[in-house]
Amino acid sequence: MHEMISGVFHAAFQNPMLDTRHDAAVLASPGQRLAFTTDSYVVHPLFFPGGDIGSLAVYGTVNDLAMSGARPLFISTGFIIEEGLPMETLVRIARSMSAAAQKACVQIVTGDTKVVERGKGDGVYINTAGIGVLEHDSVISPLEVRPGDLILVNGDLGRHGMAVMASREGLEYESEITSDSAPLATLVQKLMGAGVPLHCLRDITRGGLSATLNEIAEAAGLNFLIEEDLIPVRADVRGACEILGLDPLYVACEGRLVLFIPEPHLKQALAVLRDDPCGKQAAVIGRVRGPDPRGLVCSLSPIGVERVLDMLSGEQLPRIC
Amino acid sequence: MHEMISGVFHAAFQNPMLDTRHDAAVLASPGQRLAFTTDSYVVHPLFFPGGDIGSLAVYGTVNDLAMSGARPLFISTGFIIEEGLPMETLVRIARSMSAAAQKACVQIVTGDTKVVERGKGDGVYINTAGIGVLEHDSVISPLEVRPGDLILVNGDLGRHGMAVMASREGLEYESEITSDSAPLATLVQKLMGAGVPLHCLRDITRGGLSATLNEIAEAAGLNFLIEEDLIPVRADVRGACEILGLDPLYVACEGRLVLFIPEPHLKQALAVLRDDPCGKQAAVIGRVRGPDPRGLVCSLSPIGVERVLDMLSGEQLPRIC
Repeated sequence: MHEMISGVFHAAFQNPMLDTRHDAAVLASPGQRLAFTTDSYVVHPLFFPGGDIGSLAVYGTVNDLAMSGARPLFISTGFIIEEGLPMETLVRIARSMSAAAQKACVQIVTGDTKVVERGKGDGVYINTAGIGVLEHDSVISPLEVRPGDLILVNGDLGRHGMAVMASREGLEYESEITSDSAPLATLVQKLMGAGVPLHCLRDITRGGLSATLNEIAEAAGLNFLIEEDLIPVRADVRGACEILGLDPLYVACEGRLVLFIPEPHLKQALAVLRDDPCGKQAAVIGRVRGPDPRGLVCSLSPIGVERVLDMLSGEQLPRIC
Repeated sequence: MHEMISGVFHAAFQNPMLDTRHDAAVLASPGQRLAFTTDSYVVHPLFFPGGDIGSLAVYGTVNDLAMSGARPLFISTGFIIEEGLPMETLVRIARSMSAAAQKACVQIVTGDTKVVERGKGDGVYINTAGIGVLEHDSVISPLEVRPGDLILVNGDLGRHGMAVMASREGLEYESEITSDSAPLATLVQKLMGAGVPLHCLRDITRGGLSATLNEIAEAAGLNFLIEEDLIPVRADVRGACEILGLDPLYVACEGRLVLFIPEPHLKQALAVLRDDPCGKQAAVIGRVRGPDPRGLVCSLSPIGVERVLDMLSGEQLPRIC
């Protein structure tokens, strides 16, 4: 079993630095300032329209690095495999991770596998940790957000969560919804290269746009106003949300981010965003108002009613990533 | 739930770099050459005499870094928590990780938690990834092992595996066996500082001494001879192994390593080892013979019979780390 697993990963991830016979990968330090992050992936089901746990585990960690403005370089992988997982499932996941790593320009350099008994896991869980390099001096953080900043997203919201939910529940829609799962580092690098001041970036994952904005508003101590009319949500996603009683603003994405930029740079930012495959549907969705110790996020409805957009108390959709 | 969990980790791991509100930790690169590694920990039970899954998750990754001669610095943690895990269990584990990190001189700088349903996990699984810095030019690798090198261990073998097994099986022995789980980086740094040429290092984990030596012999293409008489195994560990039908040479440790050094440096190496709390029982257990394309490890019994020490085909003890 152990040899078979090593074989699968070795074949899929082969690169000069990966050495399954050693305890650690040795890397030339890529620069003065590094970014380091980790995430575990427990998505159920393992495969869904537009992605799988393997590509998700690469893109999720790449995107976390990208949100600090880092260029992602190296990824570690830890697999917790439930006894009885078909070997072809593992091969499919490993190949998907390898393709995702190539697409995201990162190398999988070290890894580990553990096997647990039947009934003590759920197919496979994957952890990835990532190292990136910061090649700039700018600080990208909620604390850099300023009153007057515009709030943008890079595309339509909610597709990842609804693709996973539809797949899990066996629901069929007239037009199949595919996950938005994608690596965002190149897009961020392009924006930085073009000189767009990025005050804050955050990928929209668990809890959706609402949780993301609330976290930033709270940390920044500022009040945000978004306009529901401006938020891109596809009709089929909206329809699927209605069937399941969900609000698209609370549904996770895996290839979407919010950006806070100064208004004078809007045109430039939109030009860069819309030129990238991950930013074609980029849109301004709102703006930062004044200081607010409660850090409220407000939402303006199409008929002009303003409401507070809460952070949900429970986890709306479990095991979506 | 999510807030409670964040609270637990934030309280336990607090340090200037840990920021649970951001997606990645930003670190000053500690040097030109880095080591990067990961391991997941699925040990059952979560607590055992001499340690727990938390300290194990820190020491295991620290030790993997140390085996390349790196000084471990930064650790990431990913928790996969089964619904229903008592909060006090999590607090206890987090505190243990924090104490272990302090003992091992590493900082826990970034983390993630996921929750899975009851019956889809087993209390908690932990992944850690680690970054260390290589502050020397020496290459520590099976390929550096030379005929004539001495093979050493830093202490008695098999305690970790037997402590976990005894705890799992509810066995009681007259003298309680405690895990050997410990961080080994300081010991390695001291040896390097003293100028002992370390041809190869490997921590003795899954599969025990036998698997460790077989992996190195195979990679090096050399033949090793160890003498059973010279291998330190405590009487209570040997007794427990007999009860369970196990061979101590196949039982995992978590604070033990094998060292390959040139014979002229033996005295110096033993002096350094025995001066450290993790090396008091250090011993020479054998030597490297000539080239061997099969990379066999041979063992000399007390009555002078030589046998081949196989790598076990199955995993002898599951979920020991």
